[in-house]
Amino acid sequence: MTGYLVDPWTLRWDGLSIADLRRTESTFALSNGHIGLRGTLDEGEPRGLPGTYLNGFFERHALPYGESGYGYPEEGQTIVNVTDGKVIRLLVEDEPLDMRYGRAVEHHRELDFRTGTLRRFTEWESPTGRRVRVRSERLVSFTQRAVAAIHYEVEPLDDVQLVVQSDLLANEPIEHEVGDPRVAAALDAPLIGDFSAASEAKAVLVHHARNSGLRVAAAMDHEIEVTDNLRAGMESNGDLARYTVAADVGAGGRFTLTKYLGYGWSAQRSVPALRAQVEAAVAGARQTRFAGLVDEQRRFLDDFWAAADVTVDGDPELQQAVRFALFHLLQAGARGESRAIAGKGLTGPGYDGHAFWDTEIFVLPVLTYTVPDAARDALRWRHSTVDKAVERAGVLGQRGAAFPWRSIDGAECSAYWPAGTAAFHVSGDIAYAVAQYVAATDDREFEADHGTELLVQTARLWASLGHHDQHGGFRIDGVTGPDEYSAVMDNNTYTNLIAQRNLESAAQACERHPEVAGRLGVSGAEISAWRAAANRMVVPFDRLLGVHEQAEGFTSHAEWDFAGTSPDDYPLLLNRPYFDLYRKQVVKQADLVLAMQLRGDAFTPEQKAANFAYYEARTVRDSSLSAGTQAVLAAEVGLAQLAYDYVSEAAFTDLHDLHHNVHNGLHMASLAGAWTGIVAGFGGLRDHSGVEFAPRLPPGLDGLSFRLTYRGTRFRVRVAADSATYEVLSGPALETSHHGEPLRVEPGVPVTRSIPDPPAPPVVSQPTHRVPRRRVPGG
Amino acid sequence: MTGYLVDPWTLRWDGLSIADLRRTESTFALSNGHIGLRGTLDEGEPRGLPGTYLNGFFERHALPYGESGYGYPEEGQTIVNVTDGKVIRLLVEDEPLDMRYGRAVEHHRELDFRTGTLRRFTEWESPTGRRVRVRSERLVSFTQRAVAAIHYEVEPLDDVQLVVQSDLLANEPIEHEVGDPRVAAALDAPLIGDFSAASEAKAVLVHHARNSGLRVAAAMDHEIEVTDNLRAGMESNGDLARYTVAADVGAGGRFTLTKYLGYGWSAQRSVPALRAQVEAAVAGARQTRFAGLVDEQRRFLDDFWAAADVTVDGDPELQQAVRFALFHLLQAGARGESRAIAGKGLTGPGYDGHAFWDTEIFVLPVLTYTVPDAARDALRWRHSTVDKAVERAGVLGQRGAAFPWRSIDGAECSAYWPAGTAAFHVSGDIAYAVAQYVAATDDREFEADHGTELLVQTARLWASLGHHDQHGGFRIDGVTGPDEYSAVMDNNTYTNLIAQRNLESAAQACERHPEVAGRLGVSGAEISAWRAAANRMVVPFDRLLGVHEQAEGFTSHAEWDFAGTSPDDYPLLLNRPYFDLYRKQVVKQADLVLAMQLRGDAFTPEQKAANFAYYEARTVRDSSLSAGTQAVLAAEVGLAQLAYDYVSEAAFTDLHDLHHNVHNGLHMASLAGAWTGIVAGFGGLRDHSGVEFAPRLPPGLDGLSFRLTYRGTRFRVRVAADSATYEVLSGPALETSHHGEPLRVEPGVPVTRSIPDPPAPPVVSQPTHRVPRRRVPGG
Repeated sequence: MTGYLVDPWTLRWDGLSIADLRRTESTFALSNGHIGLRGTLDEGEPRGLPGTYLNGFFERHALPYGESGYGYPEEGQTIVNVTDGKVIRLLVEDEPLDMRYGRAVEHHRELDFRTGTLRRFTEWESPTGRRVRVRSERLVSFTQRAVAAIHYEVEPLDDVQLVVQSDLLANEPIEHEVGDPRVAAALDAPLIGDFSAASEAKAVLVHHARNSGLRVAAAMDHEIEVTDNLRAGMESNGDLARYTVAADVGAGGRFTLTKYLGYGWSAQRSVPALRAQVEAAVAGARQTRFAGLVDEQRRFLDDFWAAADVTVDGDPELQQAVRFALFHLLQAGARGESRAIAGKGLTGPGYDGHAFWDTEIFVLPVLTYTVPDAARDALRWRHSTVDKAVERAGVLGQRGAAFPWRSIDGAECSAYWPAGTAAFHVSGDIAYAVAQYVAATDDREFEADHGTELLVQTARLWASLGHHDQHGGFRIDGVTGPDEYSAVMDNNTYTNLIAQRNLESAAQACERHPEVAGRLGVSGAEISAWRAAANRMVVPFDRLLGVHEQAEGFTSHAEWDFAGTSPDDYPLLLNRPYFDLYRKQVVKQADLVLAMQLRGDAFTPEQKAANFAYYEARTVRDSSLSAGTQAVLAAEVGLAQLAYDYVSEAAFTDLHDLHHNVHNGLHMASLAGAWTGIVAGFGGLRDHSGVEFAPRLPPGLDGLSFRLTYRGTRFRVRVAADSATYEVLSGPALETSHHGEPLRVEPGVPVTRSIPDPPAPPVVSQPTHRVPRRRVPGG
Repeated sequence: MTGYLVDPWTLRWDGLSIADLRRTESTFALSNGHIGLRGTLDEGEPRGLPGTYLNGFFERHALPYGESGYGYPEEGQTIVNVTDGKVIRLLVEDEPLDMRYGRAVEHHRELDFRTGTLRRFTEWESPTGRRVRVRSERLVSFTQRAVAAIHYEVEPLDDVQLVVQSDLLANEPIEHEVGDPRVAAALDAPLIGDFSAASEAKAVLVHHARNSGLRVAAAMDHEIEVTDNLRAGMESNGDLARYTVAADVGAGGRFTLTKYLGYGWSAQRSVPALRAQVEAAVAGARQTRFAGLVDEQRRFLDDFWAAADVTVDGDPELQQAVRFALFHLLQAGARGESRAIAGKGLTGPGYDGHAFWDTEIFVLPVLTYTVPDAARDALRWRHSTVDKAVERAGVLGQRGAAFPWRSIDGAECSAYWPAGTAAFHVSGDIAYAVAQYVAATDDREFEADHGTELLVQTARLWASLGHHDQHGGFRIDGVTGPDEYSAVMDNNTYTNLIAQRNLESAAQACERHPEVAGRLGVSGAEISAWRAAANRMVVPFDRLLGVHEQAEGFTSHAEWDFAGTSPDDYPLLLNRPYFDLYRKQVVKQADLVLAMQLRGDAFTPEQKAANFAYYEARTVRDSSLSAGTQAVLAAEVGLAQLAYDYVSEAAFTDLHDLHHNVHNGLHMASLAGAWTGIVAGFGGLRDHSGVEFAPRLPPGLDGLSFRLTYRGTRFRVRVAADSATYEVLSGPALETSHHGEPLRVEPGVPVTRSIPDPPAPPVVSQPTHRVPRRRVPGG
């Protein structure tokens, strides 16, 4: 039997299922935002794709072009599988434990959202009939950022000799799914050995990446809990350090090995410095001991769930999925500390390990309202790259900062210019997240030290990109919006509205921090120009159809022939040329609909209903970024069942592998979309001005609740069929609103309000073959 | 002294000037449209870039992509420097004749437009003081398509031993100016030896290209006119066949060697068959002898000039340039015979030897009215690729035929999708040339066998690409027009008007050839749909400004900051990103202005004047395709001096190396633009309905004349300051018009008409730093 077991606090997979190994290695990945370990088996094989990642550690490679162009990035960056410390091999009387051979009497893996550990249990009978039980527990510490640890226990059911080999292995051979053979070659054995040392149960390996020059160190140390007949030895050379222990263990006895791993990397630090850093990490972990690490991990997660938990009553599978989502979002961002949160977190090599705009628009809102320090750290990473973004804007002939479409270190890595030079909304998205974070936390120190500069430099980009036309409107022409089935269009509504917010936010921040504004050279005239541009921003609207245009001219474009498109033709980008996608009314992912979520203040309820229906019929959701947003707007316009369908699609994107690519890592934005669909969809969270709610349960759910933090107040919203209850858990009173009615919630005094009838929903339909699966609780 | 000497019938360069060698190898190139020989020195070195090309012979290479996409071509094609037969080395008493050493007492090369030969004269003193005179004459035969020949004569001024080595050399090492190292590697030594043979004075080498598999054979044979003390020998191995002759020649004596070259290639024929073909070609040439080849060449050109000559009185340099242009256009197209006419002809490796839309829109009109059979042959080449174009349209999700942006064999080779998948005007351009050729020749056989299918398949493309919008207009969205500083726009006026003509032409051709239409499955309903689309074609017009839009929304875009753009920033595409060029009102090359030439019937005179002024101020002419077209419209709106400036710019593009890239080959479209500027600009030729003229001399010229062929009538138009004279040279009477007044010109009865006053011209200006050089006759 294979498949995930439904449980509110764990994700468990029984049995092996080699075909599913690679995707379960992604779902079982552990990370703290700094170190990422894919959920491979301890013994290394069978395997899907091994992966050990350090946030920000990458290799460079040339980007090839059939026809080059001005401003095309010359170098790409790719996340690297660094020195693998996960491997612990077991030989039972000279027979290697390999689950492809012999017989697994029992086997399961279990990711625990409360302990933050991955447990594995296997009872295995070797081909010659010897039985062992193997239990392991693995963690990547939230509290000790440079540390991972594995507790590995073998219980033989016969008297046997056991040999355990524990490795640090660099340049592990892996397959690269990249199109260009030169890029694949650049990633083959990318690490050059700088140093290795081993003594007793400890070893350290230091390497650097061939082209990027970034240096990585990995250290391991071991504890063994077996006393008799022990023979242990360490050897190390170049790419491999191996600790070997042999012991005779009687039936029913235990052999226990604890492995402590320390990781670090640097662009500047010397070999001795890095070595010292990882050895110190391991020494600290040993001093804490494994049980201590587990305790710390549990306490960290207890606090997280107290701040962030979401409950879903009546749909256990969705309950599991949303906790899975929150857990992985925490893992991606908890200890990133001024590094990016990549599209896949640190769960796999997908998208080359790059961070995109998804982080700011989908992931950061979750963190802002649950783990605000993690959101702050991610924005500090953006701030640390502002010089590169200013330089890039200069290359593109613009003032201000143009943040990259995709990157690891902040330099543009997109070889596709309609994204890499024209998707300027990325900069507006960053500004949006800055303003959202500052509004939600009132973190004036961040605003002064980092936020204002981000807002100013991005506002300057818009002032530079746009122009006032002959009618006085402020136009932003020739840009690529969120929908990747359109590109290089004039006046993308999303982009223009996000730019409008950006310009206003920058003006406000400069007024709150005049000394910062002065340092950045912002004059009163510049602020006035921002406000003038914001006030005159063009927002294309088709009066004939009564809907907003995704971009100017969109509604005049030809309709896509959905009836003539077969289910196998999706995702369309693999089967249709760009030019044809771009010039027709086919939408990959929420764009205008996303604008209606983020800038809901710019649309009337009637426009939202009409727009939603119009774009719903043309949106194919070939992107994992879409369903969560569609859920939010579906809920707002009164389509509660459809919202539920989309929340479920977002929530199960990875667990059900809906896009057939979970083997390359989880979709952080989709995981975030599950939360957003529940909290902003069912819960109606909006933050155009403070935090406001308009909760409404979808049919079939018995209730739900979510916990948020706003300006130091932790609170919970519980939603029942007819009413919602607001309760402050800690901190000062909360000012909010319920379905438009202002509300003040004092600590210790929960407030319950009844839920009004929903609005009359518009009639909507989706493209042929793209109707979302109807969600039935537990279905 | 270096530089071209001004002469009406030759192009001559005195002196060596190594820095200019590579560009003069282009201007001195010889070709018949099948074989192309760059104008290298006989002795091979010093050299710029050697080049021997066969039309249609290419090597394949992978096209690399940093990010791939659906429909991107996987393979590129590049013209190959085939077996070089031009080399004749001379040793004077063991000292190689190398003009970098010793002293050139005199040296010049001279291309003769009437004899069709390249003559070279050198008097050289060796480093040790021995003097020789070398005279050579080289031709690529217009009459014997597979033949080139070199007459080589040495006259020693001292008694010396001469050794002459005459080579056939394959895989000559050359430098590749390609960005991608893999592509360069693929072109390094691309020929694999299949066969070589040598006997007496003859040799043959057969090779095939490594990846394309195309096979090429080259043969040589020699005649020697020296009797005493001759020692001759031939050797051949693999990539080199060498004929060596040693002779003692007294002072004032002569050593003469004639080298006959035969070339052939095939995708299918066997080694023995190709060998036989080139040996037969050489045998035929030897039988004709060199003097016979020269005679045939002269007669061929006498006939050409009788049909095509253009005279310019009062500007000798322009006179030379226009004959240079006509001569090279003839060379590019004369004997192509169902092969493409490449953008550079066969004069160099520029643009990889690809053909573009330039051929149909710029080059073919010249040939249609001067050497109509060459135009027909070039269109037959397009017809031979219609299957590939239909397949390509299918890949792009369209019906009909989508001809390639760039290709050698008809398969799309563009790695840049906004050109390679969206520049659909190419197909309309081909249809335009078909209709123009048929109208000018009344060649019904071509129309039935080739033309109608081309018109039908291209009309189907437009019917598939466009759609009727809610207002009933027929829109063609998301396409790239001629201006390469715009891309993927809605309703490009040029494209829509060329599509409109295409649809009408197809309907008419089907009505004239119902049996062909039936075979192609064209129904009455399909023809009606074409006409409906043509009748409702959207042509964007800005009522506020009173000008046509190059594409929908163009006039709302931001103006380019010309004042802030330095002269060094041109061409802008090397210094500005695509996105910024595309979204602003900056025009690389005539687009709307070209529409006003080709579809002048779709604009009023007032619109032409207003449009010309509007786009003139925004056109930077970073393309060599622009000046000729601007000349035509400048002349039409009454700006005679400006037309003269632009004619001159087009005419001197190659001779003055205005784009700094003549070293890679001549610009066929610009050479054609010189003719078009004179004939359609000063002469006012239009063919929207028959042929019509509106001649008007520019200031400073004393007169001009041009010869054309229309429906079997050869005629001449002579233009003086106040009048124009129309004279039939052969064939039936000509129906035409002069400045709108109908005119019938009977054979033997020249008709003279006075020239009316020009229209009041609009006030025009060009972008800063992009004002054309003012032409002063002889200046």
